[in-house]
Amino acid sequence: MSDPLIQLRDSLRVFAAERDWDQFHSPRNLATALAVEAAELLEPFQWLNDEQGANLSPETRAAVEQEMADVLLYLVRLADKLDVDLAAAARGKIVKNGEKYPVGKSRGSSRKYTEI
Amino acid sequence: MSDPLIQLRDSLRVFAAERDWDQFHSPRNLATALAVEAAELLEPFQWLNDEQGANLSPETRAAVEQEMADVLLYLVRLADKLDVDLAAAARGKIVKNGEKYPVGKSRGSSRKYTEI
Amino acid sequence: MSDPLIQLRDSLRVFAAERDWDQFHSPRNLATALAVEAAELLEPFQWLNDEQGANLSPETRAAVEQEMADVLLYLVRLADKLDVDLAAAARGKIVKNGEKYPVGKSRGSSRKYTEI
Amino acid sequence: MSDPLIQLRDSLRVFAAERDWDQFHSPRNLATALAVEAAELLEPFQWLNDEQGANLSPETRAAVEQEMADVLLYLVRLADKLDVDLAAAARGKIVKNGEKYPVGKSRGSSRKYTEI
Repeated sequence: MSDPLIQLRDSLRVFAAERDWDQFHSPRNLATALAVEAAELLEPFQWLNDEQGANLSPETRAAVEQEMADVLLYLVRLADKLDVDLAAAARGKIVKNGEKYPVGKSRGSSRKYTEI
Repeated sequence: MSDPLIQLRDSLRVFAAERDWDQFHSPRNLATALAVEAAELLEPFQWLNDEQGANLSPETRAAVEQEMADVLLYLVRLADKLDVDLAAAARGKIVKNGEKYPVGKSRGSSRKYTEI
Repeated sequence: MSDPLIQLRDSLRVFAAERDWDQFHSPRNLATALAVEAAELLEPFQWLNDEQGANLSPETRAAVEQEMADVLLYLVRLADKLDVDLAAAARGKIVKNGEKYPVGKSRGSSRKYTEI
Repeated sequence: MSDPLIQLRDSLRVFAAERDWDQFHSPRNLATALAVEAAELLEPFQWLNDEQGANLSPETRAAVEQEMADVLLYLVRLADKLDVDLAAAARGKIVKNGEKYPVGKSRGSSRKYTEI
């Protein structure tokens, strides 16, 4: 099985090349588009309370899934343009976070979130 | 070689379980955190003009890479909580986009972006 | 008493002129900065549940207030650059929303939000 | 002439009361909605280069104006819920920024932005 992030990267290269869209895909533009998609992903949650947010309707879940796909596509495209190894960067971040939030001190507390 | 998205999903499950953080990781909270990280990714670009945005300093590129990792981690975690197959959803979205923006009509034009 | 939005607009003009910052204040840059600040405003809420979100600590409330100020400043500056009368635009939007969500049909329902 | 921010606050109170929408207007929900609107404001700029971003078409400018109104309305509503004096907070922030970016050191430089 091949790496899905590499597959997506290659598919997006072809997609952009066929449409001559590389000219629009500057890192800045892609970062902007990614932030816009992340907000669209958030939108279906905006008026939900905790219970509703934990029990999405099938329609809302499907809408969220589409926006998640958009976020991933822009993220993969941006990584390609900046020559970033997304999976390696994410693995590295988990290691860093493990040091930042040691199990003993962080257990069951959201303070680490709000204090940093 | 195993799938990096699956690896990250599993690592994040362990990370949250060790810290008893599942209680904070509702879909709504994760979607909010993802949007916040996407904005942090955008922040280094906010005062750059086109030329600067296309030629990031090594420091800015490194900062952006860290934020990209954060976005991916929240996206993978949200996908786990909603039982979404991220790679499949992204592949499906590329197919949809291909139908929405046929090569012949979309070539070299950003109008499709601004008109929809 | 003078209009606070006009006062802020004028103060920001002086502030930018003194620092020669007009060159950075393109509408696009200001819109980007505004979105970044809006995400910073959201950040303190990201791990709070409904009850916590409705009872902010004094520290969190103070932090949110600072971010609200930032959002307003960028909004006023963007309005100045685009020659938009913010107060008039907002009043017009309330009228539109009143037509979109008639009292009789919208009472007590958040469906109007999620369906549009 | 009365203060437009107070006018808007009062209009939004009536608007929400008539529709029984106060139940949805928790600070967290309003902060989320504000971030979503700020991203919608940014969307029309996402594929524009510097020159295009500085010369918006009348249609784009009108769309941006509508989103600016939405941002202001949520900001005013959030301020009401948190008992924040928006104009005073913004004036205070300008004073703070003046100390943070002294004229002599900040003139013509965007470094202050990217370094903080």
